Amino acid sequence: MKFFEVVKQSKKSKARLGLLSTPHGTVRTPAFVPVATRGTIKAIPPKDIPDIGIQIAFVNTFHLALHPGGEVLKKFGGIHKYSGLNIPLMSDSAGFQVFSLGRASERQRRMRTREGDEALLLGITEEGARFRSPVDGNEIAFTPEFSMQEQARIGADIVMAFDECIYYGASKEYAKKATQRTHEWLLRCVAAKKIKNPSSVRSARTFAGKQMLYGIVQGGTYKDLREESAKFVAKQHIDGIAIGGVAVGETTKEMKDAVGWVAPYLPPELPRHLLGIGRLEDIVAFVRQGMDSFDCVELTRLARNGIVFQKKGARFERYDLTGTKRLREKDPIEKDCPCYACRNFSVAFIHHLFRERELLGYYLATYHNLSFFERAFQDMREKIEQGNL
Amino acid sequence: MKFFEVVKQSKKSKARLGLLSTPHGTVRTPAFVPVATRGTIKAIPPKDIPDIGIQIAFVNTFHLALHPGGEVLKKFGGIHKYSGLNIPLMSDSAGFQVFSLGRASERQRRMRTREGDEALLLGITEEGARFRSPVDGNEIAFTPEFSMQEQARIGADIVMAFDECIYYGASKEYAKKATQRTHEWLLRCVAAKKIKNPSSVRSARTFAGKQMLYGIVQGGTYKDLREESAKFVAKQHIDGIAIGGVAVGETTKEMKDAVGWVAPYLPPELPRHLLGIGRLEDIVAFVRQGMDSFDCVELTRLARNGIVFQKKGARFERYDLTGTKRLREKDPIEKDCPCYACRNFSVAFIHHLFRERELLGYYLATYHNLSFFERAFQDMREKIEQGNL
Repeated sequence: MKFFEVVKQSKKSKARLGLLSTPHGTVRTPAFVPVATRGTIKAIPPKDIPDIGIQIAFVNTFHLALHPGGEVLKKFGGIHKYSGLNIPLMSDSAGFQVFSLGRASERQRRMRTREGDEALLLGITEEGARFRSPVDGNEIAFTPEFSMQEQARIGADIVMAFDECIYYGASKEYAKKATQRTHEWLLRCVAAKKIKNPSSVRSARTFAGKQMLYGIVQGGTYKDLREESAKFVAKQHIDGIAIGGVAVGETTKEMKDAVGWVAPYLPPELPRHLLGIGRLEDIVAFVRQGMDSFDCVELTRLARNGIVFQKKGARFERYDLTGTKRLREKDPIEKDCPCYACRNFSVAFIHHLFRERELLGYYLATYHNLSFFERAFQDMREKIEQGNL
Repeated sequence: MKFFEVVKQSKKSKARLGLLSTPHGTVRTPAFVPVATRGTIKAIPPKDIPDIGIQIAFVNTFHLALHPGGEVLKKFGGIHKYSGLNIPLMSDSAGFQVFSLGRASERQRRMRTREGDEALLLGITEEGARFRSPVDGNEIAFTPEFSMQEQARIGADIVMAFDECIYYGASKEYAKKATQRTHEWLLRCVAAKKIKNPSSVRSARTFAGKQMLYGIVQGGTYKDLREESAKFVAKQHIDGIAIGGVAVGETTKEMKDAVGWVAPYLPPELPRHLLGIGRLEDIVAFVRQGMDSFDCVELTRLARNGIVFQKKGARFERYDLTGTKRLREKDPIEKDCPCYACRNFSVAFIHHLFRERELLGYYLATYHNLSFFERAFQDMREKIEQGNL
């Protein structure tokens, strides 16, 4: 079976319908990819996945490498068996952590992975990136080879090449250097995946045969660097292309530009993933530009803070469940939403749960936001099918 | 339909099989009554209730009166509709809070109802108990009439008379006074429930017709007071009897004594609830003494701290999921447990979830502990059925 197939190309835009086929199931694209950082979509038991309509999820190599660690995941036969997430999975390369820890000042270069625990980026070199582990304080070197090894042990269906996500406002000189580094790392990832039996990546063999590799396009906010990166990545031995560093842009225009610059250079037969994009309005625009999948942590994070989505005409509005004026609100979050939260609970009750910090509140709000996104993607797919996007 | 019916009386002990029939369903007794303090069994969506085997749950009047408040609950038509808990429900009277806030010293007389919020017991008089609200700092007076009004607004199927749970180590003089107070309050609860149209308890009429009232036996650790209390409560106009203040006993013997003293005076046609008892070993003994139902918060609280139950022969053992030695444990919590957590997840994965404070961990551990208790009760009912208890 082919990994990716374009089923229908829109005539009105570059939007397209596709199928991503993996050993854990087939994904209809355009697809939303909710984040399951540590092997769990926060607050959602895997058994709810079919009802919500989730097709595929995104796990984080940096976090899983820290705990439970690649060795444990390998022992369990990979993340699917370990976590009970029996759906297609993508893993990132930990390159985003290089970005999120690296862009800040020395003092801010800390990521709170958990209350009280901090990861510290010690440095980025051509070889890779070095971190201080928040688990035991030891130094961890993330290289392209280590990223591929850990992703092989995690065993997601789709893996990402190790990259450097360039911070917003980087000079052209820095962006150029980082993009070149990303390209060199991509070559090393491709090579690491091909190696048959090296002692350092021995475990990679377990899953390597099934894992699809996405190369990542960088280039910052510079048109020529983005184009050059797209051209370079497109001609490597890869199964898909991800575009990184777009969410870093501060305006929708900047983000659309970054995608628009590279779009002409993306081979149509490869699936295209846009990393870290979560505003639905933006996603619709990116689908029109020919993007196939999108991961984002924002809608689930918002849910845990009591912010849920409502559709008002063509707009996607945010609704705060925590305000005291919700105390007597008898309606569900959305009257016509078929999700479990909306079919069974009032805004008032979910407000009460948030007010009292009851775990059920996080579950219901997350359930709704995920269902909301999946329905929005279903709508987009139907519109493409009908030739209306 | 009769509210309570004894279906089978064991010949080996006082254990009995019964049926509690309510507008929200029928409960097979002996029954476990998990606690849903604020209208939610912590971490468990109502849709999981049938699979876990939960028949009935226990809500707390004190907490619900503070938020969302009786007026909101009445507007929603009661706790069942408000919370989505479509099963028989019991509510307590807030008498336990009088105890838990009252037994401590002035300085300790604080209950952390939520991080940073404290309720303060201001005093107990013949009239009732006065609290400082943790919500807005205002004084709240809990009287028998207010308790009945709030319980009517909550609308549980079974309500408890307002009582004073006597602290462990109370002098006989204090225990006697408190027990008498509980008896007087019971008379006032019975009267409040009968009143047709008083302005102060007007809302009570909404549900009063359906609500079954349990009188509460107190008496502390004194045999004569316990006996006297049982005799007094048994002859009032009530639908069931609860025994309070037993869990306060520090040894199993003290607890069994407290139940043993009153057992001969409990009319066999009334259902008997034992308040706040959660050790399964103790519960088996109390079932042999003729008790029909039991609520307890401990197993769900333990679950949220990573402690789960395992059956080892005839013993019920506690197993700590949080220790680092669980990192590679491939087995489920219990190999032959049919619950969702054990059918789908290893100890290692749930350990990982607790290590990373993932919400799914609280869900899975709670799911198992509740399933474990429900199966233990099912076992007890089968043993009575077969004449083996």
